[in-house]
Amino acid sequence: MNKDLVKENERVDDLQNGCYVIQDREKFCFGMDAVLLSGFTKVKEGEKVLDMCTGTGIIPILLSAKTKGKNFTGIEIQEDCAQMAERSVKYNGLEDRIQIIQGDIKEAVSIFGAASFHVITCNPPYMIGAHGLTNPHMPKAIARHEILCTLEDVVSQAARVLGDRGRFYMVHRPFRLAEIMNVLTRYKLEPKRMQLVYPYIDKEPNMVLIEAVKGGNPRITVERPLIVYEKPGVYTKSILELYGMV
Amino acid sequence: MNKDLVKENERVDDLQNGCYVIQDREKFCFGMDAVLLSGFTKVKEGEKVLDMCTGTGIIPILLSAKTKGKNFTGIEIQEDCAQMAERSVKYNGLEDRIQIIQGDIKEAVSIFGAASFHVITCNPPYMIGAHGLTNPHMPKAIARHEILCTLEDVVSQAARVLGDRGRFYMVHRPFRLAEIMNVLTRYKLEPKRMQLVYPYIDKEPNMVLIEAVKGGNPRITVERPLIVYEKPGVYTKSILELYGMV
Repeated sequence: MNKDLVKENERVDDLQNGCYVIQDREKFCFGMDAVLLSGFTKVKEGEKVLDMCTGTGIIPILLSAKTKGKNFTGIEIQEDCAQMAERSVKYNGLEDRIQIIQGDIKEAVSIFGAASFHVITCNPPYMIGAHGLTNPHMPKAIARHEILCTLEDVVSQAARVLGDRGRFYMVHRPFRLAEIMNVLTRYKLEPKRMQLVYPYIDKEPNMVLIEAVKGGNPRITVERPLIVYEKPGVYTKSILELYGMV
Repeated sequence: MNKDLVKENERVDDLQNGCYVIQDREKFCFGMDAVLLSGFTKVKEGEKVLDMCTGTGIIPILLSAKTKGKNFTGIEIQEDCAQMAERSVKYNGLEDRIQIIQGDIKEAVSIFGAASFHVITCNPPYMIGAHGLTNPHMPKAIARHEILCTLEDVVSQAARVLGDRGRFYMVHRPFRLAEIMNVLTRYKLEPKRMQLVYPYIDKEPNMVLIEAVKGGNPRITVERPLIVYEKPGVYTKSILELYGMV
């Protein structure tokens, strides 16, 4: 491990699977949503994977460890963030399997070409508009709010850079579920699998995981509920498994 | 109670709330879906309610008992079924609050007029097409398969007979969730509330309950999971409450 890759304002998180990720203490850090999305995503041997809005690069790093995908590309619009993700890739010695691109996902087709991936993952900004948080210098706001890209930007570009029957995986907030279904269907990414993540068994879900298939037939499987906590501070077995702790 | 209202091939089920419903032993009987839909539906004092595809009339009967709605209309296309529902209304002495109409929901606007209800409920046929079960004399097939009405028929008519900000409540199967969201949105019935019904905590859901508001803004609340069984044969407290058993 090369400690020179880590700057003073940064920390290195152990992903419990032999990999590490560099994060800026002041900026947007990856959360459970990225871990859940990686757990929900299926990558077959030899497949090419694109992670849109890759942030710290957490999703390609986790997927490279748990799957036999051929290669993983992460695209991130914020320069600092993209550089940090690239250093994380080097820190793990994964340069042969993971490539980080600094760029705008709205230009994904011109950057990568049409139908160039088997799988796309995305943990996009969840919040509609900016609600006053329009300062474009705030990396956290850009990661959380639809300032630089909207749900429709993500889906429309994903539909074009995915090959036929390619799979799109996304984590999002349940309050946008109707819109998510509508936008996916409009761009011929048929929702095929969905899982709701409930913090507790008796609480409203705070995340939704979705798999859509380009050109798929209309029939969705809603999976068993994913419940996060047994009780405050105690994860369920399902979550411990995802984190590789059992 | 007038026992003459019950025919030889019929039985009377006690709804545990002072009401009863007549059912044909050979035909489609109401199930837990109707009870769950009634539990999920909100009717305010003085509101007018229409139940599409009313079948045995179970939903208007349950809603009349638990709410202060002004009146309840059930529409059912099958003549035998509509007559049986009407006898159930009489059996309960509810003729002043519940009216059963034998008719086709595809003609709901011409029967009832536009914007004539505050609330619409529907437990429609779940299965797409007929899959060989096209015999129009099979009452069960008509209740289960989209032989005489489709999801789009229900939604398009509901959108017209509901007043502005009127509420549409439906129970359906999760495998059609994406289509449900799309059809509702297309007819300006915005999905606002949803609950998934899981038979067990670790199983896929087998029902989805949805509330949509005519002309509502796009934001949906997904509710806590509704789990049916603690263990085989033992209902959860949530279900016992719905059945009025606690």
